[in-house]
Amino acid sequence: MDHQRIAILAHEKFPDRAKTALGVMRYGDQEVAAVLDRETAGTRVHDHLVESDAATIDDAPITASFAEALEAKAETEAGAGDGGADDHDIDALLVGIAPIGGGLDDSWRADIRAAIEAGCDVVAGLHYFLNEDEEFATLAAEHGVELIDVRDPHEGLGVAEGRAGDVDADVICTVGTDCSVGKMTATMEIVAAARDRGIDAAAIPTGQTGILIEGWGNPIDRVISDFTAGAVEEMILEKGDEHDLLVVEGQGSIVHPAYSAVTCGILHGSMPDALVLCHAAGREAIHGYESFELPPIPEYVDLYEGLSAPVADADVIAGALNTKDVADDATARSAVDELAADLAAPVSDPVRFGAGPIVEAIEAEVLEE
Amino acid sequence: MDHQRIAILAHEKFPDRAKTALGVMRYGDQEVAAVLDRETAGTRVHDHLVESDAATIDDAPITASFAEALEAKAETEAGAGDGGADDHDIDALLVGIAPIGGGLDDSWRADIRAAIEAGCDVVAGLHYFLNEDEEFATLAAEHGVELIDVRDPHEGLGVAEGRAGDVDADVICTVGTDCSVGKMTATMEIVAAARDRGIDAAAIPTGQTGILIEGWGNPIDRVISDFTAGAVEEMILEKGDEHDLLVVEGQGSIVHPAYSAVTCGILHGSMPDALVLCHAAGREAIHGYESFELPPIPEYVDLYEGLSAPVADADVIAGALNTKDVADDATARSAVDELAADLAAPVSDPVRFGAGPIVEAIEAEVLEE
Repeated sequence: MDHQRIAILAHEKFPDRAKTALGVMRYGDQEVAAVLDRETAGTRVHDHLVESDAATIDDAPITASFAEALEAKAETEAGAGDGGADDHDIDALLVGIAPIGGGLDDSWRADIRAAIEAGCDVVAGLHYFLNEDEEFATLAAEHGVELIDVRDPHEGLGVAEGRAGDVDADVICTVGTDCSVGKMTATMEIVAAARDRGIDAAAIPTGQTGILIEGWGNPIDRVISDFTAGAVEEMILEKGDEHDLLVVEGQGSIVHPAYSAVTCGILHGSMPDALVLCHAAGREAIHGYESFELPPIPEYVDLYEGLSAPVADADVIAGALNTKDVADDATARSAVDELAADLAAPVSDPVRFGAGPIVEAIEAEVLEE
Repeated sequence: MDHQRIAILAHEKFPDRAKTALGVMRYGDQEVAAVLDRETAGTRVHDHLVESDAATIDDAPITASFAEALEAKAETEAGAGDGGADDHDIDALLVGIAPIGGGLDDSWRADIRAAIEAGCDVVAGLHYFLNEDEEFATLAAEHGVELIDVRDPHEGLGVAEGRAGDVDADVICTVGTDCSVGKMTATMEIVAAARDRGIDAAAIPTGQTGILIEGWGNPIDRVISDFTAGAVEEMILEKGDEHDLLVVEGQGSIVHPAYSAVTCGILHGSMPDALVLCHAAGREAIHGYESFELPPIPEYVDLYEGLSAPVADADVIAGALNTKDVADDATARSAVDELAADLAAPVSDPVRFGAGPIVEAIEAEVLEE
């Protein structure tokens, strides 16, 4: 995205069920003028974040509507004595939540209309495409703004040829015990930590948030299922000879009742050299499918390694534990240690404790071989 | 399909690489006027089939083009002294081959045009949709015929809710060691053999051939990957309280470098009670991906059962071995015995030896529990 200053719609879901919003706020280049959440309007972003998140995410007002976001922005500028409002206009509204199923909630329509009428682009990663919505499409044409559906795959995707293993780069794939355990975050943190150590690393974005952050990528969960692996392979072939390390953003979980197809296609399409298992501390059942218990961690290791082996031999060499729901560092540290014992491999919470131990494992097990 | 008498396009691929053609010829209700294969034109269907296939598939001429198919049909009728040509006109051309990637080969265009110009519908299960081809769409409108893309999923599919396990019917899923090992055939034979024994059984078609035969179904490999399991679940919920046994047509293989996403989505979307593993005798590497060796059979059992367990506990209770490339019954029988030993479960070639042993296993392990 080329936008400089955005508002993010996250009605009734910020921050805990607004992972696209949080991801873009943490890793994106854009300034965030306001978050729209009618439930917590009047508070500020930092009122809702744990310390480790607040350290990496800028504060911003939370407003009930797009109209109020425009006002909040005007007030801020007035307060700061900044006369050049034109330099800092909100130039896009981002839909920062993605409900199960990826539909558009009718209660968001007024804000989307208001944004278009204010001359802002609207960016969304929903399965429901803004460009196919007659009202929005007509209004956007009238106001000369763009509707950007990042989950709309490009034309010309096809079946995998089993060639991802041929690239020069070593390939790491993040895999998960469930949805929403931090695979995208782990991917971004591993790439950043690897770069800090002088490794030429790049992320392979496979979901709307990763695509929004990186500015490119294939939305694998929206691709025709026959082309799932092929759409990943295409990205690996495109970047695989330009970098030394590719970190593929995984999706879903191999035991997810709804999304395992996406997970499996990414695993085989990327033909990884090694896997990083991502988990959320305290998660015991599939998010949103609570009657499905998560199997024990060693079973995940067997499944991911067993499934990978016939296509690309890859072991789980490290773990990334999301401890955002754990109150204190000491408890988080013991959760990390517990997962490390289950995996018999290094583990970190890449946000709370840094991705260093994970990158060290990648260096030892993959890059130096 | 409501068509009575069809021609089947299978250029350069009949019979060994024309599985849609063979499937429709074996299980479909339509009379086949001719097969189009320019490579073997002038021969007849039975010249190319092994005995067990010839027993279940009617003979027909093989012609080089659709025009010749029309002539061949006229000759046959003249020979038979049948004056009522109107009753027996070819009413559809079926594209009976599906290359890797599902594209349209330009060399087929002349036959498709000829069929449309002769007033015939054209039916295809390609990823390339005839209805989106400007030339065909225009021509079809001019001639008042239908272009039927069976691989075009219906609107309104969504994510699975994990509810397929709630239906009254017991659910069997066919799973494979590779593509093109006979999962669709096993599905049809199991359903037929079960009905012969008085079991109220139905097939759940997931691919173009099954859909063509049954006249309904969701083309799972063409569905958005996020909706893969959901599109299977939809069919299970639709039929699950009307029958005692559902047999889900599997696709691909869980270790396929390109298609494993489809396999995984069907496995979890159907939430099966038991699995039937399908294999082709002599197959040692992934079809079309020869650098990928098939793992040993027990590894498949571990993978399919392990992957299924967290969503629906299902064991591999029987095997279906495709022995069409095995010359004699004695050799086929020992191949069957070998797979049975690997699975520690009953195995049959449902075409050569009948699906009886597989249905017996289903009765013993699933229906009677």
